Amino acid sequence: MKIREKEIKIGKLLPGKKNCITDVEGVRVGHVTLDFPLDERDQHVCTGVTAVLPHGGNLFREKVPAASYVINGFGKTTGLVQVEELGLIESPIMLTNTFGVPAVTHGTLEYMLKITPEIGDTTGTVNIVVGECNDGYLNSIRTLPVKPDHAIAAIQNANTERADEGAVGAGKGMVCFGYKGGVGASSRIISEEQTSKEYIIGCLVVSNFGNKDEFPFSQYGLSEITQKTKDTPDGSIMIILATDAPVNDRQLKRLAKRCGIGLGRTGSHFSNGSGDVVIAFSTARIISHQSTDHLEYAHFIRDDHPVMNMLFQGAAEAAEEAILNSLSQAVTTKGRKGRVVEAMFS
Amino acid sequence: MKIREKEIKIGKLLPGKKNCITDVEGVRVGHVTLDFPLDERDQHVCTGVTAVLPHGGNLFREKVPAASYVINGFGKTTGLVQVEELGLIESPIMLTNTFGVPAVTHGTLEYMLKITPEIGDTTGTVNIVVGECNDGYLNSIRTLPVKPDHAIAAIQNANTERADEGAVGAGKGMVCFGYKGGVGASSRIISEEQTSKEYIIGCLVVSNFGNKDEFPFSQYGLSEITQKTKDTPDGSIMIILATDAPVNDRQLKRLAKRCGIGLGRTGSHFSNGSGDVVIAFSTARIISHQSTDHLEYAHFIRDDHPVMNMLFQGAAEAAEEAILNSLSQAVTTKGRKGRVVEAMFS
Amino acid sequence: MKIREKEIKIGKLLPGKKNCITDVEGVRVGHVTLDFPLDERDQHVCTGVTAVLPHGGNLFREKVPAASYVINGFGKTTGLVQVEELGLIESPIMLTNTFGVPAVTHGTLEYMLKITPEIGDTTGTVNIVVGECNDGYLNSIRTLPVKPDHAIAAIQNANTERADEGAVGAGKGMVCFGYKGGVGASSRIISEEQTSKEYIIGCLVVSNFGNKDEFPFSQYGLSEITQKTKDTPDGSIMIILATDAPVNDRQLKRLAKRCGIGLGRTGSHFSNGSGDVVIAFSTARIISHQSTDHLEYAHFIRDDHPVMNMLFQGAAEAAEEAILNSLSQAVTTKGRKGRVVEAMFS
Amino acid sequence: MKIREKEIKIGKLLPGKKNCITDVEGVRVGHVTLDFPLDERDQHVCTGVTAVLPHGGNLFREKVPAASYVINGFGKTTGLVQVEELGLIESPIMLTNTFGVPAVTHGTLEYMLKITPEIGDTTGTVNIVVGECNDGYLNSIRTLPVKPDHAIAAIQNANTERADEGAVGAGKGMVCFGYKGGVGASSRIISEEQTSKEYIIGCLVVSNFGNKDEFPFSQYGLSEITQKTKDTPDGSIMIILATDAPVNDRQLKRLAKRCGIGLGRTGSHFSNGSGDVVIAFSTARIISHQSTDHLEYAHFIRDDHPVMNMLFQGAAEAAEEAILNSLSQAVTTKGRKGRVVEAMFS
Repeated sequence: MKIREKEIKIGKLLPGKKNCITDVEGVRVGHVTLDFPLDERDQHVCTGVTAVLPHGGNLFREKVPAASYVINGFGKTTGLVQVEELGLIESPIMLTNTFGVPAVTHGTLEYMLKITPEIGDTTGTVNIVVGECNDGYLNSIRTLPVKPDHAIAAIQNANTERADEGAVGAGKGMVCFGYKGGVGASSRIISEEQTSKEYIIGCLVVSNFGNKDEFPFSQYGLSEITQKTKDTPDGSIMIILATDAPVNDRQLKRLAKRCGIGLGRTGSHFSNGSGDVVIAFSTARIISHQSTDHLEYAHFIRDDHPVMNMLFQGAAEAAEEAILNSLSQAVTTKGRKGRVVEAMFS
Repeated sequence: MKIREKEIKIGKLLPGKKNCITDVEGVRVGHVTLDFPLDERDQHVCTGVTAVLPHGGNLFREKVPAASYVINGFGKTTGLVQVEELGLIESPIMLTNTFGVPAVTHGTLEYMLKITPEIGDTTGTVNIVVGECNDGYLNSIRTLPVKPDHAIAAIQNANTERADEGAVGAGKGMVCFGYKGGVGASSRIISEEQTSKEYIIGCLVVSNFGNKDEFPFSQYGLSEITQKTKDTPDGSIMIILATDAPVNDRQLKRLAKRCGIGLGRTGSHFSNGSGDVVIAFSTARIISHQSTDHLEYAHFIRDDHPVMNMLFQGAAEAAEEAILNSLSQAVTTKGRKGRVVEAMFS
Repeated sequence: MKIREKEIKIGKLLPGKKNCITDVEGVRVGHVTLDFPLDERDQHVCTGVTAVLPHGGNLFREKVPAASYVINGFGKTTGLVQVEELGLIESPIMLTNTFGVPAVTHGTLEYMLKITPEIGDTTGTVNIVVGECNDGYLNSIRTLPVKPDHAIAAIQNANTERADEGAVGAGKGMVCFGYKGGVGASSRIISEEQTSKEYIIGCLVVSNFGNKDEFPFSQYGLSEITQKTKDTPDGSIMIILATDAPVNDRQLKRLAKRCGIGLGRTGSHFSNGSGDVVIAFSTARIISHQSTDHLEYAHFIRDDHPVMNMLFQGAAEAAEEAILNSLSQAVTTKGRKGRVVEAMFS
Repeated sequence: MKIREKEIKIGKLLPGKKNCITDVEGVRVGHVTLDFPLDERDQHVCTGVTAVLPHGGNLFREKVPAASYVINGFGKTTGLVQVEELGLIESPIMLTNTFGVPAVTHGTLEYMLKITPEIGDTTGTVNIVVGECNDGYLNSIRTLPVKPDHAIAAIQNANTERADEGAVGAGKGMVCFGYKGGVGASSRIISEEQTSKEYIIGCLVVSNFGNKDEFPFSQYGLSEITQKTKDTPDGSIMIILATDAPVNDRQLKRLAKRCGIGLGRTGSHFSNGSGDVVIAFSTARIISHQSTDHLEYAHFIRDDHPVMNMLFQGAAEAAEEAILNSLSQAVTTKGRKGRVVEAMFS
């Protein structure tokens, strides 16, 4: 159940129809979940892959404006160097466990090469973006169970429906505030009086951060739940932000930065060992890989227009609500060494 | 009255003796407040200068490790280029109104030249750091009332006492969430079991941000107060963070970044027009301007030690509490055009 | 005489008509030069102010896209925080000596307030950008001879003619490679076969860096000149880059970065004590301060078009040639303590 | 033959004994080279892997201070997010072709997991750093010939000898200025009068950038060589910088930045499609993964000491010479589609 269905409302802006990143038209989410024992005692695969596609076409041929913002950089996200330089995403955005990054990068690369024969032949290379959190508390991460094909499958599973949340996909083995975390999603409608247009901002997180005593139960009108899990390690959070608002890469970085507000409101202090990374993109503009024109044309929201502040607010609210949804949607999960991480909500 | 005296407690760490940035040994704060009408009707000077001194010696000759972090850069803070390159502060940190920056820089420069005859003669130049917020709602900012001598006076007023808060110094004309804001201060004790040492982290803000409807009254157990002020403009916040913990410039930037958590928790979305800047320094190490050795020796807290996470938490809590103190300590203030900005607490 | 008139050609692209930043249509340069003794022996004022205006209108009301890039940050340039956040310049770009920054900021602020009554009253504040080098070898910099009015005069002197170079304006007291440096300017025509449009990129520097033994005389076909000046200190360079090519703030930062190539080719190693800062703007687009539309429309050069690489090459070549022009145009100059810095070319 | 053996001397500082990155004590370099046809006509594997090890121990357990600097970010280097946050390297630094990054990351991960059983079990994860250039002109890059085992082999091949250069390892298929490029190495001795200590700075590049008409033959006293290769695409350069000087991560970033000077001097304009990335580390300090102390102790070179400027100069010179060595050591190489890239020197 989403947190909002439990009468916990975050912020003031209204969510979109699905209260999901897929409220941004065209955005697709796909999961592959891995959950099986490797032996009779200790080793258990409890992990997965999640793909977020800015649109359903060939992302290399039709890129979207993008930016990233590193809240805390104890993480292994790949692909950000080029996003920073060019302000573009040209592949699905992939999420997985820390040691799954190379396999998922490899699989996504194979996928992009297959659907785009010109890459690495008559044109240049492709930049794959993969984020991660460490699910090693529940998942036998050292056995490297994520394979390239899982990445391809996650991409192929991607659809525009309301995304599955909780202990699925890349969220399968994640732990948040000592409770079961994982995938969470949300959205906000940006509707401003003077603007005839309505925009939407959507968020998807993989939550894997926080100690139990950091979560502000009372702030959300919750009573603290007795919990057996102890001393789960420093984790991370990956945050994907999507919008159909026409914003450029500089503005997307500004939006990405506001996700840290939502994260902070849930009790995080961006702990040292946390890889807290935001990747943001806009679907309002397509940049073709090939063009005969030497110019590209664009329009953007003015930085000083009230709509921009509403987008900032939307980014903060959506991030906070997506994190809470990752908790409220997650189910109690068993993993390696007989470990069990309980759901915050039963 | 500080917010804590009103039984509103922020976070879990305990404040220091003065609950002020001056709990960090050696740190000094000085104010100069300007408050007088310029004519019988419209023009009113309602502004000031605040100086924060990392120690009582000559800061050029005895520099301290420092870093800055720009939460949102719609601001005119000066001096950050060199702080970023060298990781050092070598002058008092000055705060004033937006248009007072050149006068305050000039005055602080004159002060440093006077006490340091070698600057600009037998040795190089000095980097002055001045931050600002726009107090133009109450203050006739266009009349440029802040003069270089006010900066010198603020420095000379600086002392290690519990700093005055609210509508004083640089905070005189500031407006926060539509209420009277201004100077606020706080501190946190960092005491960890395994570490024999106890550290302190202190914060001083000049708050000038936020719309009234952004402040989360209920989160702090407050009932909303009827308020006459409307449509105060986008503002800013300057945050000064001090610690006696041995941390280097990279780590100070990490600490500075966590102040954004505290800011976000008070309801801010880092609005477009806000210049939200953090300047952080450590008093644990002095870097002499002159040295016969080609090496400098230092020790730092390990990034992965629990104490570092406590410092992160302390930075977030101290920033939040300093903002609330700026509100609780501020008194209703009259300014230009007959405008009145009310205190949040009567 | 410009270096090109001495048959020294830098790079492969052709310069514009004036071989000056003013080849970019609308760009204006103005100088105020100060040169007088303060006593009979030691103290001499040998400094000045230079203003670069992206266009002849009110820059606050009609802003231009801009970016900065800090090559080495031992410098006191002010105004970059907001340029970084918003990607805009909204005032004349001012250059002066290190301790002249506050006076010049103040004077430029007064100028902007005078021509723009709404600033600080019915609208927000204005961001002033001022760069500097330390001319303290020749100039009695501690006497703070630059006053706010000098900034205003430099702005008022600004015109679209070929700019004066060498020991003028902010360049009056500067020393480069132990020779007389100062103001230098240059330009490059960007003309690409497939593009019907021709663009221009212009550069203006204030050179004040380098030790004598770093300058690669032979690389430029020059024989080394016997020189009396010894041990001039670490200096700085300010580089202003202008173009009429339609490029956004991200692309302007890329262009700004290439100026470091030109600087490196002249022999610089970006020494520790050098404040090497580039400020770049485009005149191809005007962003109005006020607008009824919530959107702005723009077009940009595609990053992958050959024209972009030519602009990169142009930025590198123009920076190198502007530095050489600052040397070739400078005349032997006397300053404080009877010091004389000789021209590289007699 | 190294360029210096051809009487071409770069800069003023002297090279170390091997004129190689391995002059920095403890640093190891290993190559795996792949060169075989995939069919009778078109497809040819012409690529490899190069490993640079800061020391011969377990790099996870004994980390070294590090920094990266992105000259131009059209590249897929992985691992930089964490290097930026923590200022540490904790794995071999790997170089390969663009599409080999995931396989090499995977192989290096397997290697680190094998020699460090605690990773991902009782302690956290490991950050792998892999850089790349696109060798797709000669190499059938789409066939993904680099496998995880090649990475492991490159690490196991690593030794402290003078590294092989030219068309070996990751340099096998690289093209530089239209000539055969690849691996190049160099070093500089930093010996300053007042300092009793002597330091060394070493560099290793994989060169794959530049158009033929950009190379300044005459600057190096060379006559231009007739060359058949045309229109080789935009490439990249990876630069690894090592030193035994005690410098911290902030200072290492400063050093890394100076490598761009050397790159610019060879004629590069940091073209749009180029991924030009520097990774720098110091061997002067080991940071243990585990520690019972909450503090770490360190000493650094003072930023204002002449030795720092010499290190800057050394970084620039070493980068330039390493690039030239990559050209002078490379042999004419055949690749896919019958393509031949000629050596610059016969």
